[in-house]
Amino acid sequence: MEQLNTIKPKRGRPRLDSKHSEETKRRIIWAGVEIITEKGATATGIDQILKKIDIPKGSFYHYFKSKDDYLIEVIQQYNSYFIHKLCKYFNDQTVSPVTRIVNFTEDAKNGIKKFQFKRGCLVGNMGQESSLLNEALIIKIEESFRNWEDLLEKCLLDAKKEKQIKPDIDCATTAKYFWIGWEGAVLRARLHKSLEPVDIFTEKFLHDLKI
Amino acid sequence: MEQLNTIKPKRGRPRLDSKHSEETKRRIIWAGVEIITEKGATATGIDQILKKIDIPKGSFYHYFKSKDDYLIEVIQQYNSYFIHKLCKYFNDQTVSPVTRIVNFTEDAKNGIKKFQFKRGCLVGNMGQESSLLNEALIIKIEESFRNWEDLLEKCLLDAKKEKQIKPDIDCATTAKYFWIGWEGAVLRARLHKSLEPVDIFTEKFLHDLKI
Repeated sequence: MEQLNTIKPKRGRPRLDSKHSEETKRRIIWAGVEIITEKGATATGIDQILKKIDIPKGSFYHYFKSKDDYLIEVIQQYNSYFIHKLCKYFNDQTVSPVTRIVNFTEDAKNGIKKFQFKRGCLVGNMGQESSLLNEALIIKIEESFRNWEDLLEKCLLDAKKEKQIKPDIDCATTAKYFWIGWEGAVLRARLHKSLEPVDIFTEKFLHDLKI
Repeated sequence: MEQLNTIKPKRGRPRLDSKHSEETKRRIIWAGVEIITEKGATATGIDQILKKIDIPKGSFYHYFKSKDDYLIEVIQQYNSYFIHKLCKYFNDQTVSPVTRIVNFTEDAKNGIKKFQFKRGCLVGNMGQESSLLNEALIIKIEESFRNWEDLLEKCLLDAKKEKQIKPDIDCATTAKYFWIGWEGAVLRARLHKSLEPVDIFTEKFLHDLKI
């Protein structure tokens, strides 16, 4: 459910030093994050990713053994980026815990709008195609969800301490519940080209938690 | 989010009478429902659908102008099937309104399990690929969600009348909220090959409604 800035393709013959090599690998991974966030993994060909950033196909197999190996790195990269974003919002000590959650959802809404409802959640997209993905990829996707659940659970525990939410809330289960519904909300927002599903989900979710 | 029984391919040269013609069209549509429920629309080729039921490609264009025309009929067929199922559960006057919702979710769980977590929601799958689908298809998918929302809203209104749920519940918004979260729950169930996400979603959803 996260949107990323577009990386402009760099033209010309690739240099061979190791710094450049790292940079090329990074660009191939980010290009995958961008395209797969929009189209999912199975509808995205390696050719399409490389064409986007003007890199010859031979380079790809220098960096990655297979499409599956590559997809694992794409998920890792996306997850690191998303964890960084969640930490920024959920650990923000300048606002109350419930406001931290609201601020994250507002940022996500801005991102969805910025990319004209085309980009969804990379991890959610891949989750939807899980019957076509290999086991190692599914484990990585599951790990990502667990990371997000842990970060939200911590924020909900803070909210409980500050008596912003009902004392009998099970924060671990509620965090799982949030990400389950959130994926549905992002899917529906993209479909309807409207932020209404995200608002409906977020408002009722928070309403049901509050004292 | 609905699972369907597999239709066995019929071998031999097709007969040309109109009854047979209708039957062939019906089989092509149902084969699409089955495959797209598993893999989504963009990852599914027409060849793959026809191969599954042993029908030559020429026949396809006798019945459908294009893949998009076909997909509209696939969505309509799935939606009719699913509406029939929802009516069966949500209009069941022999049990209380909340039990009707529980019974629907239990039936859905059985279906997910029966197909080894491979099949999801056809409409949800297509929603996830919305950036790749044409406008007419998206309108059909939106119509389906509205049908499901209306049926659930009616059941929630019954629950309110019977004082099973809080009197201040907005049944129309809550019905939208349910289907938003439900799509996320089915997606996560398929990913983890576990019914836990469906249980987490259903239990908290109903818990938050109850008086």
